[in-house]
Amino acid sequence: MNFTDKLLDASRKNKSWLCIGLDPDPELMPVADVLQFNEAIIEATSDLVCAYKPNLAFYEALGTEGLAILERMVKEIPGNIPVIGDAKRSDIGNTARAYAKALFSVLGFDAATVNPYLGYDSVEPFISYEDKEVFILCRTSNKGATDFQNLRSDGLPLYEIVARKAREWNIHGNIGLVVGATYPEELKKVRSICPEMPLLIPGIGAQGGDLASAVGYGVDARGEKAIINVSRQILYASKEKDFAQAARNVAEKIRNQVNDYRSKAR
Amino acid sequence: MNFTDKLLDASRKNKSWLCIGLDPDPELMPVADVLQFNEAIIEATSDLVCAYKPNLAFYEALGTEGLAILERMVKEIPGNIPVIGDAKRSDIGNTARAYAKALFSVLGFDAATVNPYLGYDSVEPFISYEDKEVFILCRTSNKGATDFQNLRSDGLPLYEIVARKAREWNIHGNIGLVVGATYPEELKKVRSICPEMPLLIPGIGAQGGDLASAVGYGVDARGEKAIINVSRQILYASKEKDFAQAARNVAEKIRNQVNDYRSKAR
Repeated sequence: MNFTDKLLDASRKNKSWLCIGLDPDPELMPVADVLQFNEAIIEATSDLVCAYKPNLAFYEALGTEGLAILERMVKEIPGNIPVIGDAKRSDIGNTARAYAKALFSVLGFDAATVNPYLGYDSVEPFISYEDKEVFILCRTSNKGATDFQNLRSDGLPLYEIVARKAREWNIHGNIGLVVGATYPEELKKVRSICPEMPLLIPGIGAQGGDLASAVGYGVDARGEKAIINVSRQILYASKEKDFAQAARNVAEKIRNQVNDYRSKAR
Repeated sequence: MNFTDKLLDASRKNKSWLCIGLDPDPELMPVADVLQFNEAIIEATSDLVCAYKPNLAFYEALGTEGLAILERMVKEIPGNIPVIGDAKRSDIGNTARAYAKALFSVLGFDAATVNPYLGYDSVEPFISYEDKEVFILCRTSNKGATDFQNLRSDGLPLYEIVARKAREWNIHGNIGLVVGATYPEELKKVRSICPEMPLLIPGIGAQGGDLASAVGYGVDARGEKAIINVSRQILYASKEKDFAQAARNVAEKIRNQVNDYRSKAR
């Protein structure tokens, strides 16, 4: 089964376009054990999400052990829920192939994020895994994004040129885009350029993006394929023993808000 | 000691601006054991290089064990030789901080490569390690580089805008740039924008870049700070038992050629 089908199945079953970013931060975690923490979050929320998205940085910062935890955790996530490896990798052909192997074959992700700065031959080794999805960074949610992504060339900002290239490269139908919720107008523009692609939308919650516009501008014509990612707001909803239940409560609330905005958007 | 001093010391001691890319590829390696292979290469060449540059992709492709090998190998490289972690990482502030910790504190690299697409706040957590060097991807050596890096905005190609931003961001004096040897005119231009920065120059050998122009256009006014990276041409110089000696022979030849071109460039 390809990624889009798996995503749509999970989303329809759980009535959710919420994705939880599994980003364990030792300074914020209510328990010391990363695997135990993630397992508790997954157990408490797996009927409320369309996907999980671990960011590799948080596991790499834990050393070799962190990668072992990540590998084990990916296997423990219920098989019907797609897992997006947020790796933002980029390298030239030969090396990109090694990264694609690491993310799709070794770690077993259903999808991965990649950085487009190196151009087509850095993306091709990823999209050649036709059952996997490749989310290309387009317009990121951070302040510094404007340094380069909004530079105009022939009248178009770079992020729009990236969106157009992604559309052109999408011969296997397995490319998606990362577009931050913090810039609703840009999100709207990207959705108009790529009306059918899954969009991975971070920047809600801790980063300040507005949920209503993220959903309203992010969904496709059927009100789907806008993957709303939330990390810290859910993971660290409580510093106490009840952290998993607190995470579930926040996740359920956001899941329902997203659905409300989806019905308004249509 | 900061990176530049360590680099200059190693370079002057070994009379070399050659950097060897430690990129173990199981399909090309003459022995099965990655650690044993790397140790043999390092032992045979550590008096001929100014730096080593392992690319993380090749270790990640080996799974958790690969990262353990990388961690151990970095410790085994002679302490006077700087080690550049070729990671090409990119993420927003909070997460970039976790990547910087992974590369500089956990794996212990002296320098790392980063991708600029996400802008200043994705680079800042790396440069805040003032004794470490941050090589920002500027003009990469691959064919697809032109997809975005050569787009013009206000008359300047994106890679030149990146070089100018890097110069502006270089408040701690610990930023370098990655510029491929495959585009000599672009290399010349970048060197003119950043006359004093260390330039990491891949693309010689297997990728077809011309060594004479890479050195001629890459060095600074003193004929230094052009780090010429070669990987496959040295690592896989022989498929037989003599691979380490064969690697040494090729490394020595390139080291000497670089020095010849350096003296002509001045």
